Amino acid sequence: MVKKLFPQVDGFVHGGDYNPEQWLDRPDILEEDVRMMKKAGVNCVTLGVFSWAVYEPEEGQFTFDWLEEIVDRLYENGIYFILATPSGARPAWLDEKYPEAMRVSDRGVRNHHGVRHNHCMTSPIYREKVAILDRKLSEKFGHHPGFLMFHISNEFGGECYCDACAEKFRGFVKEMFHGDVRALNHAWWTTFWSHCYQSFDQVEPPYANGERSVMGLNLAWRRFTSANTIDFMKAEINAVREATPEAMVTTNFMWLFGGLDYHEMAKELDVISWDSYPRFGNDSESFAETMGDTAFEHSLMRSMKKDRPFMLMESTPSLVNWHDYNKLKRPGMHRISCLQAVACGSDTVQYFQWRKGRGAFEQYHGAVIDHLGTDDTRVFREVREVSDDLEKIKGALGSLPKNRVAILFDWDNRWAINDMMGLSKHTKNYETTCVNLYKDLLSLGVDADVIPVTEDLGVYDLVFAPMLYLLKPGMADRLKAYVSQGGRLVATYLTGYVDEQTLCYLGGFPGDGLSELFGVISEEIDTLYPKDRNGMRFADGSVWEVQDYAEILRLQDAKVLASYTGDFYKDQPALTVKDYGKGKAYYVAARGSRAQQTIYLKKLLAACQIPMQELPDGVEYHERYLGDTCYAFYLNVSDQEVFIPHIEGENLINGSSIYGTMRLAPFEAGVLCK
Amino acid sequence: MVKKLFPQVDGFVHGGDYNPEQWLDRPDILEEDVRMMKKAGVNCVTLGVFSWAVYEPEEGQFTFDWLEEIVDRLYENGIYFILATPSGARPAWLDEKYPEAMRVSDRGVRNHHGVRHNHCMTSPIYREKVAILDRKLSEKFGHHPGFLMFHISNEFGGECYCDACAEKFRGFVKEMFHGDVRALNHAWWTTFWSHCYQSFDQVEPPYANGERSVMGLNLAWRRFTSANTIDFMKAEINAVREATPEAMVTTNFMWLFGGLDYHEMAKELDVISWDSYPRFGNDSESFAETMGDTAFEHSLMRSMKKDRPFMLMESTPSLVNWHDYNKLKRPGMHRISCLQAVACGSDTVQYFQWRKGRGAFEQYHGAVIDHLGTDDTRVFREVREVSDDLEKIKGALGSLPKNRVAILFDWDNRWAINDMMGLSKHTKNYETTCVNLYKDLLSLGVDADVIPVTEDLGVYDLVFAPMLYLLKPGMADRLKAYVSQGGRLVATYLTGYVDEQTLCYLGGFPGDGLSELFGVISEEIDTLYPKDRNGMRFADGSVWEVQDYAEILRLQDAKVLASYTGDFYKDQPALTVKDYGKGKAYYVAARGSRAQQTIYLKKLLAACQIPMQELPDGVEYHERYLGDTCYAFYLNVSDQEVFIPHIEGENLINGSSIYGTMRLAPFEAGVLCK
Amino acid sequence: MVKKLFPQVDGFVHGGDYNPEQWLDRPDILEEDVRMMKKAGVNCVTLGVFSWAVYEPEEGQFTFDWLEEIVDRLYENGIYFILATPSGARPAWLDEKYPEAMRVSDRGVRNHHGVRHNHCMTSPIYREKVAILDRKLSEKFGHHPGFLMFHISNEFGGECYCDACAEKFRGFVKEMFHGDVRALNHAWWTTFWSHCYQSFDQVEPPYANGERSVMGLNLAWRRFTSANTIDFMKAEINAVREATPEAMVTTNFMWLFGGLDYHEMAKELDVISWDSYPRFGNDSESFAETMGDTAFEHSLMRSMKKDRPFMLMESTPSLVNWHDYNKLKRPGMHRISCLQAVACGSDTVQYFQWRKGRGAFEQYHGAVIDHLGTDDTRVFREVREVSDDLEKIKGALGSLPKNRVAILFDWDNRWAINDMMGLSKHTKNYETTCVNLYKDLLSLGVDADVIPVTEDLGVYDLVFAPMLYLLKPGMADRLKAYVSQGGRLVATYLTGYVDEQTLCYLGGFPGDGLSELFGVISEEIDTLYPKDRNGMRFADGSVWEVQDYAEILRLQDAKVLASYTGDFYKDQPALTVKDYGKGKAYYVAARGSRAQQTIYLKKLLAACQIPMQELPDGVEYHERYLGDTCYAFYLNVSDQEVFIPHIEGENLINGSSIYGTMRLAPFEAGVLCK
Repeated sequence: MVKKLFPQVDGFVHGGDYNPEQWLDRPDILEEDVRMMKKAGVNCVTLGVFSWAVYEPEEGQFTFDWLEEIVDRLYENGIYFILATPSGARPAWLDEKYPEAMRVSDRGVRNHHGVRHNHCMTSPIYREKVAILDRKLSEKFGHHPGFLMFHISNEFGGECYCDACAEKFRGFVKEMFHGDVRALNHAWWTTFWSHCYQSFDQVEPPYANGERSVMGLNLAWRRFTSANTIDFMKAEINAVREATPEAMVTTNFMWLFGGLDYHEMAKELDVISWDSYPRFGNDSESFAETMGDTAFEHSLMRSMKKDRPFMLMESTPSLVNWHDYNKLKRPGMHRISCLQAVACGSDTVQYFQWRKGRGAFEQYHGAVIDHLGTDDTRVFREVREVSDDLEKIKGALGSLPKNRVAILFDWDNRWAINDMMGLSKHTKNYETTCVNLYKDLLSLGVDADVIPVTEDLGVYDLVFAPMLYLLKPGMADRLKAYVSQGGRLVATYLTGYVDEQTLCYLGGFPGDGLSELFGVISEEIDTLYPKDRNGMRFADGSVWEVQDYAEILRLQDAKVLASYTGDFYKDQPALTVKDYGKGKAYYVAARGSRAQQTIYLKKLLAACQIPMQELPDGVEYHERYLGDTCYAFYLNVSDQEVFIPHIEGENLINGSSIYGTMRLAPFEAGVLCK
Repeated sequence: MVKKLFPQVDGFVHGGDYNPEQWLDRPDILEEDVRMMKKAGVNCVTLGVFSWAVYEPEEGQFTFDWLEEIVDRLYENGIYFILATPSGARPAWLDEKYPEAMRVSDRGVRNHHGVRHNHCMTSPIYREKVAILDRKLSEKFGHHPGFLMFHISNEFGGECYCDACAEKFRGFVKEMFHGDVRALNHAWWTTFWSHCYQSFDQVEPPYANGERSVMGLNLAWRRFTSANTIDFMKAEINAVREATPEAMVTTNFMWLFGGLDYHEMAKELDVISWDSYPRFGNDSESFAETMGDTAFEHSLMRSMKKDRPFMLMESTPSLVNWHDYNKLKRPGMHRISCLQAVACGSDTVQYFQWRKGRGAFEQYHGAVIDHLGTDDTRVFREVREVSDDLEKIKGALGSLPKNRVAILFDWDNRWAINDMMGLSKHTKNYETTCVNLYKDLLSLGVDADVIPVTEDLGVYDLVFAPMLYLLKPGMADRLKAYVSQGGRLVATYLTGYVDEQTLCYLGGFPGDGLSELFGVISEEIDTLYPKDRNGMRFADGSVWEVQDYAEILRLQDAKVLASYTGDFYKDQPALTVKDYGKGKAYYVAARGSRAQQTIYLKKLLAACQIPMQELPDGVEYHERYLGDTCYAFYLNVSDQEVFIPHIEGENLINGSSIYGTMRLAPFEAGVLCK
Repeated sequence: MVKKLFPQVDGFVHGGDYNPEQWLDRPDILEEDVRMMKKAGVNCVTLGVFSWAVYEPEEGQFTFDWLEEIVDRLYENGIYFILATPSGARPAWLDEKYPEAMRVSDRGVRNHHGVRHNHCMTSPIYREKVAILDRKLSEKFGHHPGFLMFHISNEFGGECYCDACAEKFRGFVKEMFHGDVRALNHAWWTTFWSHCYQSFDQVEPPYANGERSVMGLNLAWRRFTSANTIDFMKAEINAVREATPEAMVTTNFMWLFGGLDYHEMAKELDVISWDSYPRFGNDSESFAETMGDTAFEHSLMRSMKKDRPFMLMESTPSLVNWHDYNKLKRPGMHRISCLQAVACGSDTVQYFQWRKGRGAFEQYHGAVIDHLGTDDTRVFREVREVSDDLEKIKGALGSLPKNRVAILFDWDNRWAINDMMGLSKHTKNYETTCVNLYKDLLSLGVDADVIPVTEDLGVYDLVFAPMLYLLKPGMADRLKAYVSQGGRLVATYLTGYVDEQTLCYLGGFPGDGLSELFGVISEEIDTLYPKDRNGMRFADGSVWEVQDYAEILRLQDAKVLASYTGDFYKDQPALTVKDYGKGKAYYVAARGSRAQQTIYLKKLLAACQIPMQELPDGVEYHERYLGDTCYAFYLNVSDQEVFIPHIEGENLINGSSIYGTMRLAPFEAGVLCK
């Protein structure tokens, strides 16, 4: 099924953030912009991300003419636009007149005017002011032929501890427990340290100088902040849709940002888009590793809406200005990273930003046009090359991956793990554990979806559930049903310790009936110091090094696949499998080192009959399908040339026909259509 | 003299914190608890540490029935109880109604409700509310046949900078100087930086954004905080004693906690008890080293009341949940650490806690009964083995060590050293210096008391006074008297620089007449950078490496035992002795490395005719005496088997008779009765 | 031209801070002080730095008699005095009565009474109280025959965010933009992130929880804080000059302190003085390196008033008490460091302090007289030796260096660089880059002036402008004029990116026309990770290692002297020169490693015909001229003896006549008069 995001656009969307309001006194530059956009192959820009102060220089005084002129000219020149709502930053008059709309810190102190993302998500007056402007923008521009979609606010995030938020939080908690404070006290185990609440009125946010020792409260606060932000976003969506009910909406997500439950947020959006700023060329890992992290993030974003492509809303054509070290992308890095996004399911390549501003915080953030102002630069040339690449593979527009493997990834779970008092705060690494698993699968040519725990598992042959510490209601039953119907499930140490309120299960972990599924009970979990090592030995003698965590299991009715090689639990089970219904439930009781993870993954994939690819080191492989047509992306993410055997067909990128071995230069990509 | 703490209990107290109020809706679990306690050999539990919210769910509404039922059943089953006062954590209604009872930070901001230890020690209303409940508890439970003692609050600590505390502090300072502000100005040297006070009304606590450059003020604040906490504790003791004037009281101390002067606090208590949570099995030091630290702490606690045993009030049977890395105790570690406590003078082995709670901050703190809920676990078995061990050595109940060596350790001194502006903040290490000295003595088989500076020194053959920077009034004379009457005293660099208000002595360090005792004057003190090294060479050519600090001495009438090997003070005296009266006064002018400290200690002990033990590496040795009977504890604190020669007698732990060499497996103990 | 600072003093000023007010109850000590000062060769003391509380114990009650007695006695004994105004620390009554005079933090919280430098620079009442006292001091002591000069306050520094300061800041900004808020918005590029100001009333200081993302605002705040402090200082100068219009004034600067623009401050002073506290003997660098840093600082201070010597107002005769490690100066270090100050242009050697106080923050800061109280100490002897040295070279009094090389150093530039968002916050290192350049020149026997960017450049043969990121108005033209008239100018990467408001130049860096001067345009700047390395190869094959930063240049009409050795810009220009008018403009596009910097400097100096000296390792060389007489200072800053060839003349320090080679012992100095 072809699902093009923007049928009116011929080809991939290629463009980025454009802030013409910074150059209104320079019409020469605004003209030059259009000329150079066309030369660069830009067919879409994102407007208005931080334009509030220009739209509404004084309260209730609006000016949109300047932008109308710009979008008209852009459209005349074949350039579409995405329109942002400007709620991410506020004009000075607003903070001056309505200080209650500024955020309050976790110590109860209200911010001053300044920076971005400084608004209370609860504030009625702020919501009102935002809605007024959003409606006007929608009326003015939502029907323009160049209009593609709304970009709601910018990189949502952050918390507010003001009194209004605290009051709303109390309501949120009360509703969560259906008004039953005894239910709250039980679920949060408040009898501990005498923390019982007599009424919901006593519930406070977890102030830095207040209550931070009740994990259920901490988790509720994160859920509330997420829900309140989504509520704010929905209010904006409602506002823009008054005039344009059919308009598509997105908001730009950020990598593995932990502050908001993106899975919940995604439900309100038509398309997923995100901002990708990897630390390319850093000196602590290879480029391939950095690219692998990004591939995980692409997969996470893509898997939020599996029936359509996602958008790479922001990226830099050269460098950013807020990394620890702001190194230039080496020649070729830009093209390969853009093609990776497409390979992973993006139908857009967009930048922050078109032209560098002259001052303030982001004046040195890379852009297509530098302060130099010309189009004969290295960066401009590489952007132009991306246009050419996209044109060559535009047949892939609207295609989608078909992955047989999934990794569960869940915000509630990461919040609960990161907040739990136990194990080691230095080595919990839930996120990294998921990312590394994804990367090691990818190194075997197996791409995986990274999905919410609530997703239908039945479509996958193999599901990984790393560190599934917190079980949402019904989760255990869903896992059992999946396996009994033939699924293969891999769980690990730290599975099923707590329910959705972080209350520990009694009677043995993994709880809520999962010990029956896996046929094991975890009696103890050992946290290893950084220098400590153990191992798990498989029947064939191979050993997987163990570090950080090791559970000591009581074997019930599972089969042992590997046993510990050392310490006082030597020879006890470390990796087990149980046949359950038509499927198999694996339990990996310890954290294996990354170095040897593929040894175990190969065994597992072979057992599950998932096909692997033989890829040279440094080659990343992804597929997108359009009906039966497969677009196969081979990305050389190394600085060496590579030779990929058994290739037949045309490399769309350079038009070469290959019969046998495909050679790729450093950072070069090959895209075949099979 | 036998001094049993609890004559009614047959044997060592074995048990721990028990929080049945968390399980009142699970009578099956409460029943199971009693059955399993008996199986585990538990004969005592500590109740009510955090039960305020259950005792008094609304202001003035009290319920104690639930606890009566529990203590009755426990007693019927042979289990005694220690009753805590619950002042360590407050119910929500109290903070809601009396916010002035919550603490104020060093920046003047009042906390929100939450966590523990969040009360102002001065607040009259808080004291009143606590006293009401304490009295009721005492009335209800203080005469119960199962009642053993009161456990006042929990792990006292922390500061409050509220206005009431500031006002009380002014009164404290005024009294300290008998109302003479000129005396204050002189003692605190306030003319410096124009900091003179015109009146006591101007004195403020050392706010983080206030006055922190007057060392006398900082020290006064620490003394005040300590005194005010003791005053609070005394108010609680008075309250519980209204109904039970004879009831014994303790409070649980914490390792080397610096916030309160435990020596002052001890005066108000009947028994010393403390909570021990070493980082066993960490990867930066050997298990023997970790055990040595704990032995020092046991000695410090024991020496606060030398005429009776102390109590190990809390420890974990498996792991804790708040270390950086929460590793399991390896098999055997638990038994050996419990026996160490007894070897060092404890008559109890108690845990936090009996059963793991299901939620919040401590849900993963080790306990005898895990969330699994069964008694067939490794941890339960090891707890049961401790019961068996204690039964075998119960003849030692009430016995006490007889140490000939003492180390002075003083809170005022550590506060003054840690706050002084000079030397290097990275290497002052007063506490570690004392601990390492203790450990190196112990490695030679010499156990030492760790005593307050105010203690009678005459009972010791050898007294170490490491880094005795601050001299309390009369201290210098007491040291002189001790030596002149035949004592051997070892002082070091940084001795006698300041008086009790941190005012420097004029005329040469060590001051207040001590330079006459030691026969040396310290002209300068050199602070070495971490990579700097020097050495001190003894007459026999052996060299003790010097690091961190080296004083340059003016030799008066002492004899030089070792001289510096390098730098511009090469060949100048580094270690001296002076015959003074019937005794000897040693002065160690530099910090020797730990690696070679025993070289010097052996010389010294030999000179003082203190007998040493030849112990294999990894064996810790302690003695307890009951009249002339000596219980000798050999603890194998290594993970290797060891062979101890020249042993004759029965090992009470395993009943074996030994003539010659005693073999101990890793973590095994041998206890002989001589 | 001889410019003696104090014609009435016979010889160099030798002395230091003296706080007799701490000893008023000890007349014996005050008498002893005078005796020992004379013995030590002290001819001047600095009085009253923190004496406010003694001068004015209650508001409006003044007592000066005690000080009159002291200055009379000092003068009778040949000892002059410098009189400080005591505004650096306030009496308690003042803070009690006028809390608005205490500082407010960047989070808007007012400090409590305490520490030093805790006053609002704006507060009218504080200025009034200070002025009253200053006038009285001036009247009482400004005409005393022993009086030399006023020392205004002490080590000015710090910020205040109170409402009065915020209001004054608004006025400052308004004036800067001549009341045109649109000019502000353009200059600070506030359209970015919607930060436009509608009126100057909306401008706030950059609170920590406020606006910190507008670089122009941040820079304005630094300029304001500097200007407001200078304004405060001028008010004090005006006050003391009412009674003594001719009195000289200084204030004591601090090393490379970044908080205040010392170049602006210097304009209000008669003499520059500073406090030098190097970390001598640390274990991360050689003594020579530490001395080199100090030489840079001396040069920076001296170059602020090139027509007269400066003053070493504070230094320690032994150790300080606030370094991380407070190590003793090794024998000889004190003498060589004092002679270095003189060699670099100081006509004084002064200490903090004469006698150690007994308590509080500075009780362990080194002093000439220790708590021991005697004059037979090592430290006293070394101070006496300094007196002797100064006597021997007193012919050099009033002499001045004549340097042909200058390094530009600018506060606005460092503020702008350190605040810019880009490059790497870990490696910007503007200050270190300047210091290292100075030190590497010095190692070739070439001393440099370190001058403000506004200084006349025409007097120099060679001017270095390292990292001249911010161009003040007219700067580009002045550089062009300098070169066109025959000057040699060396600029580096990061030159000319922004104007004085931090607004980026358009059309290519270096901006404001400088790309024409250098004949290059910087297209991109690459920030390297710490492990990354590149190189630049010269025509002769020598390679200078490159790290941290490398610009990629568009060569216009410059000549390439060295090219990159690696990475994607291999063989592109890395170091260029352009003949411009009668001079040459060099552009060093990358940061070279220090290890090989002298390779390039030798080439450059040779090309510019600046004579170098052949010095053995560890010898520092400085010259001072009195008319045609040259005083040549050879300082052995190593702990090895050194032999300096080709020397002829008398070493004034030891009176030896040298024909050929001069041997200097470790830390020894030779001073020749040529």
